[in-house]
Amino acid sequence: MTTQKFPKESLTILTNIVLPNETNALGNLFGGELLARMDRACAIAAARHSESSVVTASVNHVSFDIAIPLASIVVIEAKVSRAFTSSMEVYVDVWIDNPINKTKLKATEAIYTFVAVDANNKPKAVPAIFPETELEQKRFEGALRRKQLSLILSNRMKPEDATELKKIFN
Amino acid sequence: MTTQKFPKESLTILTNIVLPNETNALGNLFGGELLARMDRACAIAAARHSESSVVTASVNHVSFDIAIPLASIVVIEAKVSRAFTSSMEVYVDVWIDNPINKTKLKATEAIYTFVAVDANNKPKAVPAIFPETELEQKRFEGALRRKQLSLILSNRMKPEDATELKKIFN
Amino acid sequence: MTTQKFPKESLTILTNIVLPNETNALGNLFGGELLARMDRACAIAAARHSESSVVTASVNHVSFDIAIPLASIVVIEAKVSRAFTSSMEVYVDVWIDNPINKTKLKATEAIYTFVAVDANNKPKAVPAIFPETELEQKRFEGALRRKQLSLILSNRMKPEDATELKKIFN
Amino acid sequence: MTTQKFPKESLTILTNIVLPNETNALGNLFGGELLARMDRACAIAAARHSESSVVTASVNHVSFDIAIPLASIVVIEAKVSRAFTSSMEVYVDVWIDNPINKTKLKATEAIYTFVAVDANNKPKAVPAIFPETELEQKRFEGALRRKQLSLILSNRMKPEDATELKKIFN
Amino acid sequence: MTTQKFPKESLTILTNIVLPNETNALGNLFGGELLARMDRACAIAAARHSESSVVTASVNHVSFDIAIPLASIVVIEAKVSRAFTSSMEVYVDVWIDNPINKTKLKATEAIYTFVAVDANNKPKAVPAIFPETELEQKRFEGALRRKQLSLILSNRMKPEDATELKKIFN
Amino acid sequence: MTTQKFPKESLTILTNIVLPNETNALGNLFGGELLARMDRACAIAAARHSESSVVTASVNHVSFDIAIPLASIVVIEAKVSRAFTSSMEVYVDVWIDNPINKTKLKATEAIYTFVAVDANNKPKAVPAIFPETELEQKRFEGALRRKQLSLILSNRMKPEDATELKKIFN
Repeated sequence: MTTQKFPKESLTILTNIVLPNETNALGNLFGGELLARMDRACAIAAARHSESSVVTASVNHVSFDIAIPLASIVVIEAKVSRAFTSSMEVYVDVWIDNPINKTKLKATEAIYTFVAVDANNKPKAVPAIFPETELEQKRFEGALRRKQLSLILSNRMKPEDATELKKIFN
Repeated sequence: MTTQKFPKESLTILTNIVLPNETNALGNLFGGELLARMDRACAIAAARHSESSVVTASVNHVSFDIAIPLASIVVIEAKVSRAFTSSMEVYVDVWIDNPINKTKLKATEAIYTFVAVDANNKPKAVPAIFPETELEQKRFEGALRRKQLSLILSNRMKPEDATELKKIFN
Repeated sequence: MTTQKFPKESLTILTNIVLPNETNALGNLFGGELLARMDRACAIAAARHSESSVVTASVNHVSFDIAIPLASIVVIEAKVSRAFTSSMEVYVDVWIDNPINKTKLKATEAIYTFVAVDANNKPKAVPAIFPETELEQKRFEGALRRKQLSLILSNRMKPEDATELKKIFN
Repeated sequence: MTTQKFPKESLTILTNIVLPNETNALGNLFGGELLARMDRACAIAAARHSESSVVTASVNHVSFDIAIPLASIVVIEAKVSRAFTSSMEVYVDVWIDNPINKTKLKATEAIYTFVAVDANNKPKAVPAIFPETELEQKRFEGALRRKQLSLILSNRMKPEDATELKKIFN
Repeated sequence: MTTQKFPKESLTILTNIVLPNETNALGNLFGGELLARMDRACAIAAARHSESSVVTASVNHVSFDIAIPLASIVVIEAKVSRAFTSSMEVYVDVWIDNPINKTKLKATEAIYTFVAVDANNKPKAVPAIFPETELEQKRFEGALRRKQLSLILSNRMKPEDATELKKIFN
Repeated sequence: MTTQKFPKESLTILTNIVLPNETNALGNLFGGELLARMDRACAIAAARHSESSVVTASVNHVSFDIAIPLASIVVIEAKVSRAFTSSMEVYVDVWIDNPINKTKLKATEAIYTFVAVDANNKPKAVPAIFPETELEQKRFEGALRRKQLSLILSNRMKPEDATELKKIFN
């Protein structure tokens, strides 16, 4: 197994058109359908980084900023933002790409966590990751804080042990 | 409009069976499909509380604890946990219900946020909520902390203004 | 196995929204899709009553009274109405629930029959049922007439043996 | 409008393969999916007879005799069996067609009722029908009995007025 | 196995209605969905001719001549046009059938190639075919030219060996 | 409008996982589903090149070389290969990407033709294209031959006018 990798090595692009059977009653891409598509793209990114099978552990945050109308071209870009022992945080950006007026609007941003598993479905180690761009660096740094938050909220970590988070509030 | 309501008034139940066209390659309910179903149940709960149309604002946390195998009976229960000015936090619990051996296992828990909108798609005020049970009370109290976290993570609140969160870390 | 149960023990609720991919060309919930959803709800109700696997034996009657428009909240409620040796009649009511103007309209009513089966797919005995409410009582009583009708129409019973039915016409 | 037609003029054939996304947990065609397909075929047969738009009024009886396994070739044949003023009874036969061993097994038989509607969605008259084959003749004759049964069961006809039905029991 | 058959023995009819979940953003049947339906119909025609399992080898040509609007009745008719050693060319015609004004318009025409396979997934011999009608005769004759073209375009035949094709250009 | 572009400017990538509801009875990606996905990717590539709406004119050739098993990661890459007055040929390559053993296998190759249309659905001019890589050059050159073949096969061009094709056979 490769022992260290760059975020770009896991980049996964899923370009698609919004068809009527994927819209809600307002004629926009149905939120549930978008969640499903992002889940697929993130799972592939995590598999590419870990070179193994992966299972979704949690969806950490999804913000729906702009509705995505029927017939839009939607570009989903997922990339591993940080690797822990056997888990990986994956950041996914969703764009509405309009080739006619040549605009590209950010519609949604989301964060998923996956765990790499071996053939017996047991967690297995994943390569470390080295952020390159400024945005990758920023997301890499935020990942530890998000992980601690998630552990605190699910009562698996005590607030006083969340060293990264405490820095924010003090 | 009703000005105050109880969580149980928005309770929404979606019972269904896992069919083959909803499974992943391991034969379990596909995560994306579950996210979509929870989104529908939560949207109905929010509509019932606000007595208005609603749009998904964010998915705040979803933890996939137990895989849900093909042919399982899945019970999704969504209920508004806290109402703010025009937004509502909805808590959703997902159970695997086995009528043969009479077990009911918790498979997933998730938190979604919706905004009530009027006919012009503008945010509108929603009724206040009064938690009754112990669990409703606990989720009601946690909602403000989760909201502040979400605002900080999206850079819309400064950590020093997150009064509820600071209490945890001090 | 429990030897006698109440209809309410098998109550199964399936609440959902009508999305564009479930409508017919008139913009209403497609009849076939509704039949499929009712089949799922009734199968769960029968499994809950019999505490076993079940297979659909027949659809006895479905009346489409009111069209269900796009974006409606649809509440399907299924409950075993009568248990025979190994078969069960399940009654299902479908409502359009409008949380904005707080109306609840009956849209469809249907009757399905299921057979409980063991691990070898052979019919197995099911618990007796004791109707409690007036409506449950009325449906329980009608079930035997409906069963005899079904047997006559499929040439598996002679009219002169249909004691319950003969009472109606004499 | 044609004023009288033969059943064969409305014959509608829908041949298809059972794919994995249409099966239940036992690997057979999901009952709900079959109901949906039969609904489509019957609606086309009714449109062909009435030369107008039609809406499903009721499903009168469906018997699931043989399970239809994954990968089967399924042939659905729908034909109007009797025309009343503005409603039509449609009979549908479902076969499993095995081209390898050249067998054709009857899997399901069902009866649907449709109403012809004009551009304002109001019921409109349909052509009379003249059965030709022995089976068409038999189904034509049974249709009136089935209609009376349906009216009695839904409390829209008194048993003493059901002249056709009374003949069976006396 | 039968050693020679007529095209009509493989005729496969798939009649269906265009529902909203099968349309593109312009409200017409989505091209991809039509390709999928034609693939199913052609596969059945090939199975009927070969009396064996078949796999899609190629789609040779599809022309989309007329858009098929929402709610259209679509009739797909597939028939084997020529049989080679173990492969078969299947011709499929797609019609929009309007029972109200009694028109039948040709919307699409396509050509698929299938290979008959045995239980070990190895190619197996298929019966010869004898065209009867003038159209069947014309398509039978064109099939060899189309096969040579396909082989040349995929670099599996040299132009000088394409005897049938050379006749066209000389 | 840009008057000349490179193939890479229209590159469209659609990465996805094969789920059970997309497989055929053998557990491989259903051919019809793959045709639908390729259609979407090619339509986006054509829209990107033409900076306008597009409609599918024809599928010129699709070869299914390797079956794509359940759970595979499928990468679809579409790129305009040649632009004519208002039509564009789009080449699409489909790969099975295995991140565990790091192989990438070519599964399918297909050629689609699209027409750019204006707001009134009338054909409109598209930018010229300048192939850069060796493969782009080869596909660009073959496109004219394929267009002539398609016109001859549909009787819209006489063989003697197919200058490019005649070169092959003489």
